[in-house]
Amino acid sequence: MAKVAIVGAGSVIFSMRLVRDFCVTPGLAGTTLALMDISEERLQRIYDLASRYVAETGARLRLEKTTHRREALEGSDFVINTVKVGGYAGMEAERAIAERHGYYRGIDDPVSDYYGGFAAYHQLAFFLEVAREMEAVCPDAWYLQVANPVFEGSTLVGRESKLKVVGFCHGFNEYEEIVRALELDPAGVEVQVAGFNHAIFLTRFRYRGEDAYPLLDEWIRSKAEAYWESPAYLYEPWATQMSPAAVEMYRLYGLFPIGDTVRSVSPWWWHRDLQAKRRWFPAGGPDSEVGWTFHLNRLQRGLETIRAAAANPEVSLTREFPPAPSGEAIVPFIDAVVNDKPARLVINIPNQGAIAGIPDDVFVEVAATVRGLRIEREPVDRLPRRLLLHVLLPRWLRMERVVQAFREGDRTSLFLALMDDPRSSTPQQAEGLIEEILAAPWNARLKEHYRAG
Amino acid sequence: MAKVAIVGAGSVIFSMRLVRDFCVTPGLAGTTLALMDISEERLQRIYDLASRYVAETGARLRLEKTTHRREALEGSDFVINTVKVGGYAGMEAERAIAERHGYYRGIDDPVSDYYGGFAAYHQLAFFLEVAREMEAVCPDAWYLQVANPVFEGSTLVGRESKLKVVGFCHGFNEYEEIVRALELDPAGVEVQVAGFNHAIFLTRFRYRGEDAYPLLDEWIRSKAEAYWESPAYLYEPWATQMSPAAVEMYRLYGLFPIGDTVRSVSPWWWHRDLQAKRRWFPAGGPDSEVGWTFHLNRLQRGLETIRAAAANPEVSLTREFPPAPSGEAIVPFIDAVVNDKPARLVINIPNQGAIAGIPDDVFVEVAATVRGLRIEREPVDRLPRRLLLHVLLPRWLRMERVVQAFREGDRTSLFLALMDDPRSSTPQQAEGLIEEILAAPWNARLKEHYRAG
Repeated sequence: MAKVAIVGAGSVIFSMRLVRDFCVTPGLAGTTLALMDISEERLQRIYDLASRYVAETGARLRLEKTTHRREALEGSDFVINTVKVGGYAGMEAERAIAERHGYYRGIDDPVSDYYGGFAAYHQLAFFLEVAREMEAVCPDAWYLQVANPVFEGSTLVGRESKLKVVGFCHGFNEYEEIVRALELDPAGVEVQVAGFNHAIFLTRFRYRGEDAYPLLDEWIRSKAEAYWESPAYLYEPWATQMSPAAVEMYRLYGLFPIGDTVRSVSPWWWHRDLQAKRRWFPAGGPDSEVGWTFHLNRLQRGLETIRAAAANPEVSLTREFPPAPSGEAIVPFIDAVVNDKPARLVINIPNQGAIAGIPDDVFVEVAATVRGLRIEREPVDRLPRRLLLHVLLPRWLRMERVVQAFREGDRTSLFLALMDDPRSSTPQQAEGLIEEILAAPWNARLKEHYRAG
Repeated sequence: MAKVAIVGAGSVIFSMRLVRDFCVTPGLAGTTLALMDISEERLQRIYDLASRYVAETGARLRLEKTTHRREALEGSDFVINTVKVGGYAGMEAERAIAERHGYYRGIDDPVSDYYGGFAAYHQLAFFLEVAREMEAVCPDAWYLQVANPVFEGSTLVGRESKLKVVGFCHGFNEYEEIVRALELDPAGVEVQVAGFNHAIFLTRFRYRGEDAYPLLDEWIRSKAEAYWESPAYLYEPWATQMSPAAVEMYRLYGLFPIGDTVRSVSPWWWHRDLQAKRRWFPAGGPDSEVGWTFHLNRLQRGLETIRAAAANPEVSLTREFPPAPSGEAIVPFIDAVVNDKPARLVINIPNQGAIAGIPDDVFVEVAATVRGLRIEREPVDRLPRRLLLHVLLPRWLRMERVVQAFREGDRTSLFLALMDDPRSSTPQQAEGLIEEILAAPWNARLKEHYRAG
């Protein structure tokens, strides 16, 4: 019987997805789920909700709760790291600072938010702290990277620790929107994606045994316009999967982008201001002031719903959260490892040749078959060299720079990286921003860290 | 007795350097030097000059001349490619076009001039043409890449042909200016450089057995200012080796840049206009309108001197060109191969692990010991990761993009690469430039080539 620890379990929406997945996975009956959070209040809430959910479903899941991380790690076989250090406040404050220096919507990766050469510090330092503790307490456990930045984080922990590291993101599921838009029978669809987290492309798309890219081409020719005029699309800033942006990226790079890829690695000149964004993301896109506010509101409503449910023991949780797989690959991964049962999953793992041209120790997001301790990477069907050179390698380089600056406390690297931002026009501008972000009260450790160089 | 062909031998200044090197290399007595050029007039001139030089020195060098490339290649053991297709005219015309579109001094690499995703076409296509002919006529011969772009050219030919390929550049010799400025005894100096052509750094600098970087630091602290105020420096736009630019690159990247590196891979914001350049290159630098005019004038004077010498058989050529090694590594390389005699040289060869983090088949410029058919790469003493991530890998990526666009005739790649130029502010600007360059009458083949994508 496995023990699984969730570090940062107070993220109630995410944790409930995991609890639900455990409850619908018969092979994992008897698992101990150790919920850990530094907030007593949040911890108690998720513990109560999870206990009710387990009771309602009749699942055999043992729940534990603790505010002591070490206690959660002890005896664990899997440790899920979902923590966002400091929440959203610092991120929004840094975005405002960056905007004052001429960087619309901030300087960090739009998807991984908490990020860049700056705030990434808090996340990366925390990831390593957890990894070091695991090496001491449960060295044979799997470290499951869920917190962003997944790409930088999993590569860093993979290189710096002796742990077995895998990164997870549910973004690849957005391929389902292609299936819906094209009105295909999901049972006949076969897909493969490859790239890095938030930079994956559809390297295989087959329908009933045949290449389905021509169907996509036909949709673009004859149906995209109508789709883009439908209210469900027009008023949903987060509907990026079939947006003009995704279609144009397909034209520019040769493969269809999947999920957050459309936000994260679309061309820089689409993101200069809200007007520029609107050409490719007519509703403003997720990362504009419009889309982000929309997101925070929706998040807030979700939290209110779940808090209301928590406050009222009469509410049926299985009605709120029907007992069906969430689409997260985490629990299926654990199931495949624990029960030595093959599962084809999209996960972030060391490249080891899966994508030609990427170093072996870089974490790539690819399809793989997991079974026990064996992870078999699927050969990538096709990857145009133009895409490799104009999307993947620049994104890889950005990751390496973040990791190098972090590891070496190298302030000059932060500066050089920022000068590569197309919105930097003078070194004074970049230096001014770095100064102000390092001087922020919540960044005292960061400022101390970036002394070198 | 070896046969060496020079393709493009009409480049009289360069060819005379080679002739001189052969004449002062006793081990190569008996070599046949096949001079080849498409211009009868230029060919006759270099043939006459070379014949006189050989006679004056009494060297045993057999000279041949031909306008038929195949004839020159037949039976050759080494083929030196020095050709600049179309000379300078197209390059200057394209620079003027680029300036009209907002790209000061053109869009190509400042050192390799004839270059970028555009004009590089003419060079790269020609390199492959020569390589294909060698595969048919003299498949065992060495292909020696001297024409620019050496980095792109040698990597392309190395990958696309079965030939033995080595690239050459004399730029690394500029480390001697460091030795002079620091007033060191050259005999006590030991240096190692590593990187790519026009992007090399001083990875070892020792004097009388000890690390000499502290001497360089001391020079920067106490003597640089006076050096920069000396007339010999102030009025020489090509004196870049000890310029404020080189010193600042050392601070930014951690190792001292050598030779053309200071021109080619210094930060983009130093090159936005003449005023920006003057901060780091007080005399304007080699690639400004000032420095380039200076260069063309000096080149012209050199040509006039040599033409006057050619026109007057009474002139002593050995007085004009004293019989001493030129500093080019080409003839020493041939000597080492032919006579199985070890020589430590700086050459461009497939990486094969010499620089960690660079793929094996990429041509790097490194120190190596050549002996017969064996080339032993020297382990690189140190290479800061910041330098790798902020100079070498971006330069590598630029090379890969040039080669990919060329190989696939991929116009979209040209566009995407140009959008990465910090001076591109809108896609319309980049598209407009591409349109106009492709439409130029001298680019008809190029336009035809870049149909794909």
